[in-house]
Amino acid sequence: MQTQPRPQEWADVTPDTARRLLTAAVQAFAERGYHATTTRDIAARAGMSPAALYIHYRTKEELLHRISGVGHRLALGILDRARASDGTPAERLARAVRDFVRWHAEHHTTARVVQYELGALSAEHHAEIVALRRSSEAAVRQIVEDGVAAGAFRVPDVRGTTLAVLSLCIDVARWFRADGPRTPEEVGELYAGLALRMVGCDDGA
Amino acid sequence: MQTQPRPQEWADVTPDTARRLLTAAVQAFAERGYHATTTRDIAARAGMSPAALYIHYRTKEELLHRISGVGHRLALGILDRARASDGTPAERLARAVRDFVRWHAEHHTTARVVQYELGALSAEHHAEIVALRRSSEAAVRQIVEDGVAAGAFRVPDVRGTTLAVLSLCIDVARWFRADGPRTPEEVGELYAGLALRMVGCDDGA
Repeated sequence: MQTQPRPQEWADVTPDTARRLLTAAVQAFAERGYHATTTRDIAARAGMSPAALYIHYRTKEELLHRISGVGHRLALGILDRARASDGTPAERLARAVRDFVRWHAEHHTTARVVQYELGALSAEHHAEIVALRRSSEAAVRQIVEDGVAAGAFRVPDVRGTTLAVLSLCIDVARWFRADGPRTPEEVGELYAGLALRMVGCDDGA
Repeated sequence: MQTQPRPQEWADVTPDTARRLLTAAVQAFAERGYHATTTRDIAARAGMSPAALYIHYRTKEELLHRISGVGHRLALGILDRARASDGTPAERLARAVRDFVRWHAEHHTTARVVQYELGALSAEHHAEIVALRRSSEAAVRQIVEDGVAAGAFRVPDVRGTTLAVLSLCIDVARWFRADGPRTPEEVGELYAGLALRMVGCDDGA
């Protein structure tokens, strides 16, 4: 059960105090929303003074930008590794969906902040995040196009279908409950099969 | 382009002042989140005094409960009409998805509040809304089960696949932009086809 973001999610954030503030911000944003959270709330959750927070982050928006950047880079890494991996397009699409779904299930608190608070980023930071999202989309679209070119997938609308597959995975963060009936692995497996059906690559089940 | 919730969405809310406050609350919650919005903000958006608001709604939570109830009853109506409609299971599933997607695209501002602020409802109100959600899910599951019974759908996991189809439709509210490349009708048409593929009812495209 995820009550705190998993350590490896923020492993690259140093020093410890900066990482502690980031995980406190994720929890606060997820519970009350970005706009209802103050830097004072975040510092208190991390057991620090507001002054200690400002050593690492000048503004609340800088915390959100950092969270969003880490989340989007992890997502892009997952999808790009699947794109570049060995195997047929069907195997690579299944891998992309399975791993992307698992991430959204296991890190659903972070994923919700990352997905629902995009509008609170500054224009410059928003543009940077949108570029990462476009790269994620391009990675999955490449797998779909490879499948179509190989004659393994039948997809009348490659762009729309790619976005739908990503959307299905992302929405796992909204409804997934750690105490629910399915594990992240089980949802990932189910969704990998559904994604293959969406691209017209039937499993014969 | 939806800048204000469509009037018919709130047609049953009377008198006019109560409806005006409800649409102001939807806009405020969507922009800043439930917790960052005060009843004073909502009254000001509606051009009223806080005292005038309290004539109609005793608390902010009462406004959210009303919005969530209207949204969930409209959603249930759409899905239940499709379930009870004439036609094959494939035609009924396509109708359910097409109409449900259109609603989430056209009313994406309301839908986001309805979907993302469930945690802010009181325990009693939350239980009431969860019951409406279960009925919506049951309506779609019935169509899927009808399709399986008729031999038209191949669905190894009826419950999981039903939830995935609903999730795909709901997430339209997150990404849909009125100034984007697709109309609500076009997204509905694409998604109806994808849902049929998800239940193993291939269109041969």
